[in-house]
Amino acid sequence: MMNLTVCSRWHMFAKLSRPFTSVYNFSTMLSKQVLEEKIKEQGDLIRKLKSAKESKEKITEEVTKLLELKSQLVGEDDEICGNQKFTLKTPKGTRDFAPDQMALRLNVVDKIVSVFKKHGAVTIDTPVFELKEVLTGKYGEDSKLIYDLKDQGGEILSLRYDLTVPFARYLAMNKITNIKRYHIAKVYRRDNPSITKGRYREFYQCDFDIAGAYDPMIPDAECVKIVYEILSTLNMTPFVIKLNHRKLLDGILEVCGVPLDSIRATCSAIDKLDKSPWEEVRKEMIEEKNLSSESADKIGEYVRLNGKMDLVDKLMADEVLNKNKNALEGLEAMQVLLKYCELYDTSDKIIFDLSLARGLDYYTGVIYEAVLQKDELAKDEISVGSVAGGGRYDSLVGMFDPKNKQVPCVGVSIGVERLFAIMEAKQASSNIKQRTTEIEIYVATAQKNLFEERMKLCNELWNYGFKVEHSYKKNPKLLAQLQHCEDNGIPFALILGESEIKNGIVKLRDVTSRQELEIKRTNLVEEIRNRLQNIQLNGSK
Amino acid sequence: MMNLTVCSRWHMFAKLSRPFTSVYNFSTMLSKQVLEEKIKEQGDLIRKLKSAKESKEKITEEVTKLLELKSQLVGEDDEICGNQKFTLKTPKGTRDFAPDQMALRLNVVDKIVSVFKKHGAVTIDTPVFELKEVLTGKYGEDSKLIYDLKDQGGEILSLRYDLTVPFARYLAMNKITNIKRYHIAKVYRRDNPSITKGRYREFYQCDFDIAGAYDPMIPDAECVKIVYEILSTLNMTPFVIKLNHRKLLDGILEVCGVPLDSIRATCSAIDKLDKSPWEEVRKEMIEEKNLSSESADKIGEYVRLNGKMDLVDKLMADEVLNKNKNALEGLEAMQVLLKYCELYDTSDKIIFDLSLARGLDYYTGVIYEAVLQKDELAKDEISVGSVAGGGRYDSLVGMFDPKNKQVPCVGVSIGVERLFAIMEAKQASSNIKQRTTEIEIYVATAQKNLFEERMKLCNELWNYGFKVEHSYKKNPKLLAQLQHCEDNGIPFALILGESEIKNGIVKLRDVTSRQELEIKRTNLVEEIRNRLQNIQLNGSK
Repeated sequence: MMNLTVCSRWHMFAKLSRPFTSVYNFSTMLSKQVLEEKIKEQGDLIRKLKSAKESKEKITEEVTKLLELKSQLVGEDDEICGNQKFTLKTPKGTRDFAPDQMALRLNVVDKIVSVFKKHGAVTIDTPVFELKEVLTGKYGEDSKLIYDLKDQGGEILSLRYDLTVPFARYLAMNKITNIKRYHIAKVYRRDNPSITKGRYREFYQCDFDIAGAYDPMIPDAECVKIVYEILSTLNMTPFVIKLNHRKLLDGILEVCGVPLDSIRATCSAIDKLDKSPWEEVRKEMIEEKNLSSESADKIGEYVRLNGKMDLVDKLMADEVLNKNKNALEGLEAMQVLLKYCELYDTSDKIIFDLSLARGLDYYTGVIYEAVLQKDELAKDEISVGSVAGGGRYDSLVGMFDPKNKQVPCVGVSIGVERLFAIMEAKQASSNIKQRTTEIEIYVATAQKNLFEERMKLCNELWNYGFKVEHSYKKNPKLLAQLQHCEDNGIPFALILGESEIKNGIVKLRDVTSRQELEIKRTNLVEEIRNRLQNIQLNGSK
Repeated sequence: MMNLTVCSRWHMFAKLSRPFTSVYNFSTMLSKQVLEEKIKEQGDLIRKLKSAKESKEKITEEVTKLLELKSQLVGEDDEICGNQKFTLKTPKGTRDFAPDQMALRLNVVDKIVSVFKKHGAVTIDTPVFELKEVLTGKYGEDSKLIYDLKDQGGEILSLRYDLTVPFARYLAMNKITNIKRYHIAKVYRRDNPSITKGRYREFYQCDFDIAGAYDPMIPDAECVKIVYEILSTLNMTPFVIKLNHRKLLDGILEVCGVPLDSIRATCSAIDKLDKSPWEEVRKEMIEEKNLSSESADKIGEYVRLNGKMDLVDKLMADEVLNKNKNALEGLEAMQVLLKYCELYDTSDKIIFDLSLARGLDYYTGVIYEAVLQKDELAKDEISVGSVAGGGRYDSLVGMFDPKNKQVPCVGVSIGVERLFAIMEAKQASSNIKQRTTEIEIYVATAQKNLFEERMKLCNELWNYGFKVEHSYKKNPKLLAQLQHCEDNGIPFALILGESEIKNGIVKLRDVTSRQELEIKRTNLVEEIRNRLQNIQLNGSK
């Protein structure tokens, strides 16, 4: 039985026979050669049997043996590791994150979380897997991308596919009717990974949602504000936030004569307007969605419109549209939302865009999407495209409630993997090295046999709360120690030599300027504290 | 195909047919009744067939039909959710974390990470699952506790069981020979969950390790320092850190005449000395491990010893022990380590304890374990026991290296789940409510129809970087707004009324003291900033 989490890693090898070394011999490598030899022989045998036109059974039998032999052999890419044979790799579509990647990611996440916190969001966590039935029927044909766990007895489980379904399950299970929460966690999809497109099987999602029955558009406008603040704080400029409303879109399609059962298909055609010209979308509507050319043309007049409050006014004055209940409700809602966006200072980035249509079946109200635009100064294509999206979904939590009790929700999903990729690209082109630690001071020694003095000084500084390191070698070369500081962006080195110790002083080296000065040991803590404060003040400018 | 991560949650319901409501009817409930009826009928039929002594095949056929019907029926505990039927629960041995639990956990993790950062640790991340073969042969008989993923075509995968094997795989794969890293992440074990003992199937591990070939005991002493700092910063007092050395233990057993192949079994008996009296352990050694009573008695004289440097000196002077190579090497190492512990100011909590034996096969050098001791003031049993452990393991990374190239490592695992549980218990008994947000200011309105003024003020404060919220209702009651502040520990409320707006002032309410004063709108930002600074200064004392 497991002894809790504590120290359990420390006995995980306890059951291996000792001594260790006897296990790690090269017997497997030899057996690989032997196997290859055997496979060759077996192949020769089969060829011989075939040319001799032996019975099918006989040949099948020998082919089976060949396959067995081959299955024992590891692939060409595989390395023989210790007493085992396997490829040293992470699973398909996944990756490790090295210290510099983690530092950048944590930095981005910190900035995003600080925006969520400014708006009073709490955070929750849910298990990485759910009962399979919780996910069943939620993702349409994408369900095939769900990772299932092996049935090892007990419950049938699947890895979470997103954070929204677990959130809805959490709300319904705990009968929570009001919450403003963020959740940043990994989700899993057995998609065809495309590393170049940044599509992985394990990736982070970053969701912010406001659940609760409130007055119209107040939480919705705050979600837009949050997207605005996040993209601004990450310097993701220029960007726009496109807004639209599901009911307005429904109403438009209704007045254009689209049959109820074609509305969804028509929306998916409209959704392509950000990439395709109107003529192509029109053609698709007529040829594939079976709309009349009159309907398509009418739709075209609407969905190519975008603007701000002026567009709301214009559509309000539209004699056809303002008689449609859905359209009118949508327009009134947009009027309120745009007004609130003015109050929340987000108007300058907002476009009321009638072509925004995505995920329409899921939404029950406002929908929005933040898009990075081409920066004339930056030439890289990576910094263009959708980086956040969201909307109102008032009917989801009810799916989990025994009495179908609804909890209205509005939320936003920040495309963090996309943002990480952009930040990584910016970092790479800036030639500024990402620091992976926060070490402020490196304690170095100039002569041999001073390591105890070094340890004492480190200890003193640690006890004062400074971030300090030193060499784990007793007598490292001074040059190597200073090089370590430069390589790792450590701002200060303290150098101890015999004469310094005798005279009660320490040499302080500014690693960037390479200037050195002597400081009294008694003043050391204060001197360092002041210098670090100066760096912080200058650095945060 | 998936459209990256961005906004993908927003179209996940796109494939459901609309309108939503038509899907969530009670058809399933009806069909449950129908099913139950059919099951009853089928049961009757089978009973009839059996009493009529029908053929076995015929009966089996009908029983199969019955089982199929039953499998369609949900259990008694299950609830019918929307259009689906399933129990609203998390998988066995897992749990959600509510906002107050998350706030406490993040707080503890922050404090631990700040200690790691003080010592210059980087962080990495690895996928939640590994190729199954990476984990194979690493956990002995505990391998049965590994979660496997279903074979859905492609690679055979398992959820990680700890963070150490992925770390070793990462080092070997990337040919890293020097790193000081921490990793805090969830691991998975299909263990029998015991909620009362805090044993879960999904839980956090928190590892810190120093990999690299360095001079003896310098990194080892720093690991001890880190445990010391973490337990101190979390006020986990009183605690001790027990130290021992694998080679010394080997040497002691050798000189006591334990045969080589009984050393491991003897160690596991010694390991029980922290819970059982010597007499019981002695009995086990003789009766179960087949040691002679002379051997057992000799061992007993050693392993019941503990002390500090004095014990090293005493054992060094032991004429039997100081002739054993292993024992001497272990003692010399302990001498160095204890010296370094003095330099690093950790001596006051350290015990050189010869009964510490755990995980011996895995270690190649120093081993240690931090134990919380009974606090006479606190009566709860939860705050007693092992909360961290570690040691040196120089042979692990080589298991993953094709050429068996070793990377010496020393590390520590902080028992964070145990620490979380202790902090939660402390919190519960303190009656101080855990804040789940960091909101500093709540903007309230005293009369109706002032919500636009409220939004403007919120916006202004957000733009200055303050953490602010307000009601999502247009015209909430003032009392409800102030109650929200008290319930959520928000320090300040700003109250807007018609007269205040007219006079260019805002009423500032100190939520704790309930004192109110009027502030000029033009001075507002500065006034708030000062007050918040004062709170912080007093709070952090």
